[in-house]
Amino acid sequence: MSLIVMKFGGSSVGDAERMKRVAKRIVERKRAGNRCVVVVSAMGDTTDDLIDLSKQIYPGKPPAREMDMLLSTGEQVSVALLAMAISAEGEQAISFTGWQAGFSTEPVHGNARISDIDPKRVIGALDEEKVVIVAGFQGLSEEGDITTLGRGGSDTTAVALAAAIKADLCEIYTDVDGVYSTDPRVVKVARKLKEISYDEMLELAHLGAAVLHPRAVEYAKHYQVQLVVRSSFTHNEGTHVKEEAVMEQGVVVRGIAFDKNVARISILGVPHKPGQLAKVFSALAEQNIDVDIIVQSGIGEQVADVSFTISTASDHVGKATGVLESIKDEIGYRDLSHEDDLVKVSIVGAGMVSNPGVAARMFEVISSRGVNIKMVSTSEIKVSCVIEKPQLNEVVQALHTAYGLDTTEQAFVGGPSDRR
Amino acid sequence: MSLIVMKFGGSSVGDAERMKRVAKRIVERKRAGNRCVVVVSAMGDTTDDLIDLSKQIYPGKPPAREMDMLLSTGEQVSVALLAMAISAEGEQAISFTGWQAGFSTEPVHGNARISDIDPKRVIGALDEEKVVIVAGFQGLSEEGDITTLGRGGSDTTAVALAAAIKADLCEIYTDVDGVYSTDPRVVKVARKLKEISYDEMLELAHLGAAVLHPRAVEYAKHYQVQLVVRSSFTHNEGTHVKEEAVMEQGVVVRGIAFDKNVARISILGVPHKPGQLAKVFSALAEQNIDVDIIVQSGIGEQVADVSFTISTASDHVGKATGVLESIKDEIGYRDLSHEDDLVKVSIVGAGMVSNPGVAARMFEVISSRGVNIKMVSTSEIKVSCVIEKPQLNEVVQALHTAYGLDTTEQAFVGGPSDRR
Repeated sequence: MSLIVMKFGGSSVGDAERMKRVAKRIVERKRAGNRCVVVVSAMGDTTDDLIDLSKQIYPGKPPAREMDMLLSTGEQVSVALLAMAISAEGEQAISFTGWQAGFSTEPVHGNARISDIDPKRVIGALDEEKVVIVAGFQGLSEEGDITTLGRGGSDTTAVALAAAIKADLCEIYTDVDGVYSTDPRVVKVARKLKEISYDEMLELAHLGAAVLHPRAVEYAKHYQVQLVVRSSFTHNEGTHVKEEAVMEQGVVVRGIAFDKNVARISILGVPHKPGQLAKVFSALAEQNIDVDIIVQSGIGEQVADVSFTISTASDHVGKATGVLESIKDEIGYRDLSHEDDLVKVSIVGAGMVSNPGVAARMFEVISSRGVNIKMVSTSEIKVSCVIEKPQLNEVVQALHTAYGLDTTEQAFVGGPSDRR
Repeated sequence: MSLIVMKFGGSSVGDAERMKRVAKRIVERKRAGNRCVVVVSAMGDTTDDLIDLSKQIYPGKPPAREMDMLLSTGEQVSVALLAMAISAEGEQAISFTGWQAGFSTEPVHGNARISDIDPKRVIGALDEEKVVIVAGFQGLSEEGDITTLGRGGSDTTAVALAAAIKADLCEIYTDVDGVYSTDPRVVKVARKLKEISYDEMLELAHLGAAVLHPRAVEYAKHYQVQLVVRSSFTHNEGTHVKEEAVMEQGVVVRGIAFDKNVARISILGVPHKPGQLAKVFSALAEQNIDVDIIVQSGIGEQVADVSFTISTASDHVGKATGVLESIKDEIGYRDLSHEDDLVKVSIVGAGMVSNPGVAARMFEVISSRGVNIKMVSTSEIKVSCVIEKPQLNEVVQALHTAYGLDTTEQAFVGGPSDRR
């Protein structure tokens, strides 16, 4: 008999019919002899509808505490209805809000971190043979205020709860079949992965494979919670995420990720003095500008060029150039330049540590297509290249083939992402 | 500086615009130098929408605990949005769920009674000059489960909280101007009452004047909480509900109430034996059939006729005759009869205790219209007569005039009732 945590996102429980289908799925797992804890998000568009309502009432950004009070009702509705749906299937079920399930968080609204979990009510209900339904995405601060965990919060709730109750497995049900070697919308022959390591998943999650939230993966790695990402619409086997994932013979790259919204900013002619880089990036951090790749050239010369990438998804490019102009005299650099229409493509795989030439192969594949590599960044399990946007799909296809990732099956392409 | 509790029903906060208008009203009271606690119901049709959703998922009556979990979100949405609306008006506000405001209830779902209130967070927030917004209709059981108080629950929340924090006044905002001498839809010259006593209000509330829930009035009487019933749409003075209400000169009847859904069931030829009545009404009570007026005739004879009234609003008539037939042999009565199309009309007034002839006057007014009185029931402050339905409006009109209640103003007729 296994103890499992099952997590369903908002689109999996988008309406009454889907809710009933999810209930059947849970009851199946229970009757197969498992003890089941279920974490669920708000139904479909509920969260967006509540946000719309708040906008009608409060011009601008509403008080964060009240926003959490408002949004947390979405999950509370889901857990109550799902408990009813399971009861309708003939199994006993009980729903808990975040605070009833014992989730304590920092006293932060909108993006709180879990500080403690006391799952005694969850365990008590499991001992009574009940299916336990827990509201994702929410907790309680020390002051007794309702908090929310921010985007991907329900994934984190599921993983953290799995760790707290020492579950054997945490199943993340989503609208795709599992984790793919790359986006199946770009590469039709993308391969569904049987296994992937936490570190690889983290790289992929950060790089935009919107299946699992990075914070949840970090949590899983830290507490060694075994995850499975699988579809809530099919019974296909999903992708296991664990410490040591087995590589198929001859495969060193697990997947290809990409980010379509990259801008590069370059600071030209920065005089070599201690503390210059620190000054630049502290100034950017103070304005909450997230910097990704940083490259410095001209080592050993009198002046250096510093380039970095930021996301073009928000208005950070204008903000960043503004910040840099304001410190021009202090730093003493010569000029600024920026390029907006860039993308980042990355190969990820734990196997590349022991396989020299993996990066060289990547550069070769890209340049053989006449594509310029603007920046490079590497980690132990990843190589990223920044290139121009128009060639992205062609490059991803070519890398996928070059690293032996093509399969003959056509990948299932899911609907919109199902995370919260 | 007064401490006031203001209660707004669901239709007063039915959409974003109404919510903002209510917020302005509250801010007005606060800026006039009052400390304000606000109790609010779920917005407009929210509760009905949630019930519909549960019906799509659970055939029949869903588990009561989960129903409370579901429905309590309606008020939670309201309090969060109202706190935002007040913040938008420039005053500090904080919202609390029932459990955050310290409401403990019996461990009963759907119709719990308040067992204790520990309003320390409410008082703490008042001390910080905040407007405190509390979710009506809900509390927490000792087990830590969310409970709801049943119909009229938000009225009860407001009154109980007013008692707990020793408020100077509890204002019930509704969609009518106050309590009227009778239903203004029936009698155009109905009089808005300036004052009414708790006992009179209780009789009127029980008799169907859907302005205040009887449980809330009982609570107010018990804790001597002064109430005002007033409109959320106008600034007209409302009706004060208090222990000793002043009667206008020469007026002994405060109001005329009526109930349009009355059936009479008669048990004919019941042999006189001890315990017969107890058997009949225990059998009915076991089936949750609420009996109103009971009359026994034939005292001193060998057999008696027993008549009682029940509401025709549900299927209680068929249920009751079924129960009575099942105990026919045990009781040994001769026959059953019932009449469905009846109404009850009542005069209510604390003054009638010391004014003989008030009841006689009522009988005279009714019979002078050729209307048969089928049953009579009296209390210290009320006389009720059961008559046939067709003459109801005429009788109410005549009684209203006979007891000097007509005014020359035409009464404001509100929309649908605003209670929960």
